[in-house]
Amino acid sequence: MSFCIIIYNYNYNNGLDMTLTEKTTFATFNQASINEIVDYSNSLNGSGIFAHSLQLLKAETDTLLKTPLDVPGQGEAGSYEHNKHKSNYELMDACAKLYLFNGSSEYRDTIRSLLLTYAERYLNMPFHEQKNTNPPGRLFHQILNEQMWLCYAAMSYSAIKSTLSAEDIDAIENRLFKPMIEMFTVLYGHDFDRIHNHGIWAVAAVGICAITVGDTESVRKSIFGMAGDGEKGGFLAQLAKLFSASGYYIEGPYYHRFAIRPVCFFAEAIHEHYPEYDIYNYKDQVIGKTIKALIYTSNPDGTFPALNDASRTMNIDDEGAKAAISIYFARYGKEESFAATAKKQGTVWLTPCSLELCKAVDAFEGKAEVRWPSVELFEGDHGERGAQGFLRSANPDKPVSQAIMAYGQHGMGHGHFDALSITLFGDGHEYLREYGYGRWVNVETKFGGRYLDENKTWARQTIAHNLVTVDEQCQNHFDHKLADTRFGKPHFFLKDGNVQAMSAFANEHYDEVEMQRSVFMLELEDFDQPLIVDLFKIDGDKEHQYDYAVHYKGQVTNTNFEYQSKVYERHVLGKANGYQHLFEKARGKTEDNAIVTWLQDQRFHSWITSGKDGQIIFAQTGANDPSMNLRSEDCFILRQFGSDHLFASVFETHGFFDEGSERCNGAYGQVKSIAVLSHSDDASVVEIKYTAQGVNKKVVVCVSNDAGKDENSSHEVKVAETTYQWTGYMTTILTTEG
Amino acid sequence: MSFCIIIYNYNYNNGLDMTLTEKTTFATFNQASINEIVDYSNSLNGSGIFAHSLQLLKAETDTLLKTPLDVPGQGEAGSYEHNKHKSNYELMDACAKLYLFNGSSEYRDTIRSLLLTYAERYLNMPFHEQKNTNPPGRLFHQILNEQMWLCYAAMSYSAIKSTLSAEDIDAIENRLFKPMIEMFTVLYGHDFDRIHNHGIWAVAAVGICAITVGDTESVRKSIFGMAGDGEKGGFLAQLAKLFSASGYYIEGPYYHRFAIRPVCFFAEAIHEHYPEYDIYNYKDQVIGKTIKALIYTSNPDGTFPALNDASRTMNIDDEGAKAAISIYFARYGKEESFAATAKKQGTVWLTPCSLELCKAVDAFEGKAEVRWPSVELFEGDHGERGAQGFLRSANPDKPVSQAIMAYGQHGMGHGHFDALSITLFGDGHEYLREYGYGRWVNVETKFGGRYLDENKTWARQTIAHNLVTVDEQCQNHFDHKLADTRFGKPHFFLKDGNVQAMSAFANEHYDEVEMQRSVFMLELEDFDQPLIVDLFKIDGDKEHQYDYAVHYKGQVTNTNFEYQSKVYERHVLGKANGYQHLFEKARGKTEDNAIVTWLQDQRFHSWITSGKDGQIIFAQTGANDPSMNLRSEDCFILRQFGSDHLFASVFETHGFFDEGSERCNGAYGQVKSIAVLSHSDDASVVEIKYTAQGVNKKVVVCVSNDAGKDENSSHEVKVAETTYQWTGYMTTILTTEG
Repeated sequence: MSFCIIIYNYNYNNGLDMTLTEKTTFATFNQASINEIVDYSNSLNGSGIFAHSLQLLKAETDTLLKTPLDVPGQGEAGSYEHNKHKSNYELMDACAKLYLFNGSSEYRDTIRSLLLTYAERYLNMPFHEQKNTNPPGRLFHQILNEQMWLCYAAMSYSAIKSTLSAEDIDAIENRLFKPMIEMFTVLYGHDFDRIHNHGIWAVAAVGICAITVGDTESVRKSIFGMAGDGEKGGFLAQLAKLFSASGYYIEGPYYHRFAIRPVCFFAEAIHEHYPEYDIYNYKDQVIGKTIKALIYTSNPDGTFPALNDASRTMNIDDEGAKAAISIYFARYGKEESFAATAKKQGTVWLTPCSLELCKAVDAFEGKAEVRWPSVELFEGDHGERGAQGFLRSANPDKPVSQAIMAYGQHGMGHGHFDALSITLFGDGHEYLREYGYGRWVNVETKFGGRYLDENKTWARQTIAHNLVTVDEQCQNHFDHKLADTRFGKPHFFLKDGNVQAMSAFANEHYDEVEMQRSVFMLELEDFDQPLIVDLFKIDGDKEHQYDYAVHYKGQVTNTNFEYQSKVYERHVLGKANGYQHLFEKARGKTEDNAIVTWLQDQRFHSWITSGKDGQIIFAQTGANDPSMNLRSEDCFILRQFGSDHLFASVFETHGFFDEGSERCNGAYGQVKSIAVLSHSDDASVVEIKYTAQGVNKKVVVCVSNDAGKDENSSHEVKVAETTYQWTGYMTTILTTEG
Repeated sequence: MSFCIIIYNYNYNNGLDMTLTEKTTFATFNQASINEIVDYSNSLNGSGIFAHSLQLLKAETDTLLKTPLDVPGQGEAGSYEHNKHKSNYELMDACAKLYLFNGSSEYRDTIRSLLLTYAERYLNMPFHEQKNTNPPGRLFHQILNEQMWLCYAAMSYSAIKSTLSAEDIDAIENRLFKPMIEMFTVLYGHDFDRIHNHGIWAVAAVGICAITVGDTESVRKSIFGMAGDGEKGGFLAQLAKLFSASGYYIEGPYYHRFAIRPVCFFAEAIHEHYPEYDIYNYKDQVIGKTIKALIYTSNPDGTFPALNDASRTMNIDDEGAKAAISIYFARYGKEESFAATAKKQGTVWLTPCSLELCKAVDAFEGKAEVRWPSVELFEGDHGERGAQGFLRSANPDKPVSQAIMAYGQHGMGHGHFDALSITLFGDGHEYLREYGYGRWVNVETKFGGRYLDENKTWARQTIAHNLVTVDEQCQNHFDHKLADTRFGKPHFFLKDGNVQAMSAFANEHYDEVEMQRSVFMLELEDFDQPLIVDLFKIDGDKEHQYDYAVHYKGQVTNTNFEYQSKVYERHVLGKANGYQHLFEKARGKTEDNAIVTWLQDQRFHSWITSGKDGQIIFAQTGANDPSMNLRSEDCFILRQFGSDHLFASVFETHGFFDEGSERCNGAYGQVKSIAVLSHSDDASVVEIKYTAQGVNKKVVVCVSNDAGKDENSSHEVKVAETTYQWTGYMTTILTTEG
């Protein structure tokens, strides 16, 4: 019997001991812990990261406090009113921290004044008009925002409650907080148990507020769900069902970092008020696992990869990610890499829970950086529904190179149809890129900041990603219900040494077409940055059109083939499934090996492919975009016709360009060619030729294509006079040509 | 009789006293000055900017020295060989500084080793094949690079000469330096006197080298020219002829910062070895003026505006600009703004000459920033050939806003056909943008890093700039000889107070079409950033097509008019003069006031215009670009037909967007409309309506259009019941609507 079941049954059988004591002054921590971190910070005479973070918050907040407080009426997303209600809860949260750690009554008075104004007006505000499936609130157009408001307002309130008069408390609790709790648990009670990132905000908001106002029954609902069984709803059910065994969150890192905030807040509140539930050990430490999974998804520049609908810029400076790092450090273990990252971030989450992290950062003498190990994050309750693979280079003296492959689940309503898609990141930027979502978040003049039509027609389509699109169709016919039933099949993930690799199958995403992608990261002495070898194997039932897409940014500086540019007019590349958004810029034919080199920022990137008789189409977004909603972005597509095909490619990062100082070198890469020596259902063998310091060399890469083979299987492939034998999933052979 | 004549005659009449003394150990400074700055730096225990700069140079250089030295053969621009010869002189220069200030013999040995290797091989290298009008060298394809090599090599040599054996000196001087001097003054003697940025490198290189090797005759040629008259060539003639009375350099800041380096180096050498020539007072302090003019052209982010052929990223961190700032501080005056800038830069030019600047930076307590006053830099020997106008906002608490207008000379072979063009810079970025040059500098795979055809066909064309193009033609028929004879006519430049303004005429740049542009920078309390009012008056002889172009970057987030997007295909906008590079994206019609709002980085920018019956065409570069040489950039064009027209526009910067933190506000601007109330050859009156904090307000802007009027002239314009009366060039009237 696993640990999670014990905890679970304990809660369920025994119910809640709801004796609310004085310690509930603070929702998520106690006075002793405040004293402890203040003492620590003071012992450094203001030089530590906690004091620095507090100073920054104080400076920002003091500036904001120069403007008179305002509690406006209602407005659309992105409107002044919407933004003001949001900034009001952020202001209260900042003031609560400053009051607790700084002590100035001005901050306490600001919270009190805002809460009393809201209490005075709240019940007189009508509900917003409901415009989509999300129920409307009184402050915001959807209750998600209202729940976030409540969560922060209640935490802020808990920081000043002991200073308030009975009259103030009566007004705030009875005319604001309790009606809100009732709205979420009664009026919208049917929505309260929904297992979803919105749901976890609902339970955290109600739970934290209920602790603060002493509403035992609502605390119970928040933890155990409306039915009280801990299974159909509530925090425990959310934790159990939202996160996979590896901690990965099905909707992807963008939504994960949003969901992690209420997880952290409510977990701390439960930890503080109901330590007997041992929340941090619940379900085999699911909170710790999901924190680590979230943080480990982040790119080497701290941004989260745009897996599924996502911004390209959301990053680990987000409050949820910062809270998660602090909580991991305090409740699970002192991960040195987290201290390195917090040091790079320069600030920490301002709660007592950050004490251990602050100590580690203040004492940290290593390189301040974002550097994670290679990880394979399995999906599904038992890791049975594919995975997301992250390969990272190991050399600590160089910037991190990273290859991500998506071979897990679809991601529900926010999922992109991109099984086996990859992104590549190296030397400071993503160079095989995700478009991210089709949305200008919170920009009022862009459909109120909501998802745009182009999110469906472009961003979520297969062709908008770095993989093969079959017959200009979208995977799973753009049917997300269907897609949710399917997932990738991991083949192998090898993360040790100078040759790392991952491989997976996706056999159900196109009708009658099976796919396998194998990605290798080779850290060779002859190259400044790792070589990425990409073998995309595709087996169709009959002849199909296969479009291998590379989404890049920057300027093409060289190709080794001729192409015809569309000089006078550009036409749309296709009719649907994302192709209707692409203008064709130019088209060429591949004879043997094709090379495209482009310059992004200060680096050249070359793509070398073995394609014969293929077409290379350069394209740009912008077609069928009547409201200029899409960013103008570039890609090229290698188009092949056939039933079975192996797209064998190498990506090389090389050279340097700095326009400001007019320095440039290495505009040509070292890789000269890639050739498929052998290719079958059992295995593929490819040969990469390159020149380093004037010497010709080659690397042969052998990979198992058979899902039935494992690390103990032996393979043998004959190519002319040479026999390649290996045991396991793959091997590489480096030789110098005679 | 002016000061410059006295100095000039003195030199000419008295010739040179060429007693080379021991102090020639160093080309550009002496031991006492080294001791002085080292003593100062040591007094700070390594905390000052000089020590910091030296540490950075040491770290970079020590890394480079881990790689074995190499003196390769010949190669094209951008090739390994080309880059290596360049990096070798940079390495010698770094080693010379480190040897002088740090004393380690490793640096001295590196210089010696490189110079001896060059001495051994130089005369055995054949000359490059000549490919254009630039004479070829032995190391480089054009002698400009060879002169730069010599200049740095000679300075480096001077730092170690006293430590070398007679044999070493014989080899280096007789097999390397003296043959180089001979090449430049004899073989290419016909080119030595050319008044040009290349010419100033030639005289500086030969002059500095000649001082170092004791070649009196070549020093004379370098200062006074081949004929020795100081008029037709040599440093004095270059100084006298290259820079205008204001110090502005005709080719623009990009070439100016390149020309300033040899000016600084050779001036310091002359100052050191021939103080009797009082070089820093030569020609009414032309060196100081030209330094100030160069630095004052720079944008608030330190980049140089891309006036004429220029990179968009070249900036004041360039060695020439840093040297110039140090020299100004040491030889002319302690400009506090230069100390603020050097503090922001964080490093200084590593020579004894930087002592005064270092002291000022180390003691500086103000804001480290790049902030210059509004300046009008006149062109021509006596300021008679137009000017470049730079308006800058005055509020020290806000980021600098800047408007630049080009109404000076054409700029010779590197000139752009853009008289009356403007750029606007605000809150950290240029938002009315220059394309810059059509060139991927030093990128070997882009035509060897040289200027591309598209530089002529796009970058230099009128339509590629922010102004009005008449009948899809280029100004001055793209004839640079013709253009060099023409220039703008300044009308006024008013730089005091909250309303700054500049106005100029360009009446010869199109046949039978006269133009006047007036640009106002209004710093109003109601606006976070200054409003820019742009009145472009155009008087044609008959009906013409007038295209007012706005080159922007980012995403259009809103327009107040309908437009039809080219959804399935895009066609080229025109046939020639740059139009052949534009694809039409969309087209709309203006009814009354047109507004376009776009988002660039974290800011919204709105353009509000009064155009009636106009067309607005959204376009993008990319047509007729068969080698993908152009960057893909956006613009929109307001097209009007008529003989006389006033384009009246406002640019408003507003709001805030940060995708990473998902904050957004102010997506709509406050300005609602602009209307032309009256417009004649005498004056224009326009009215701008806006709403601030719910209150409707208006600003009326009145401007004189008559070149015959001045600051004492009175104007009277009747509009319905209102009479606008003012004295001088312009006035503004702010009112709140009743």
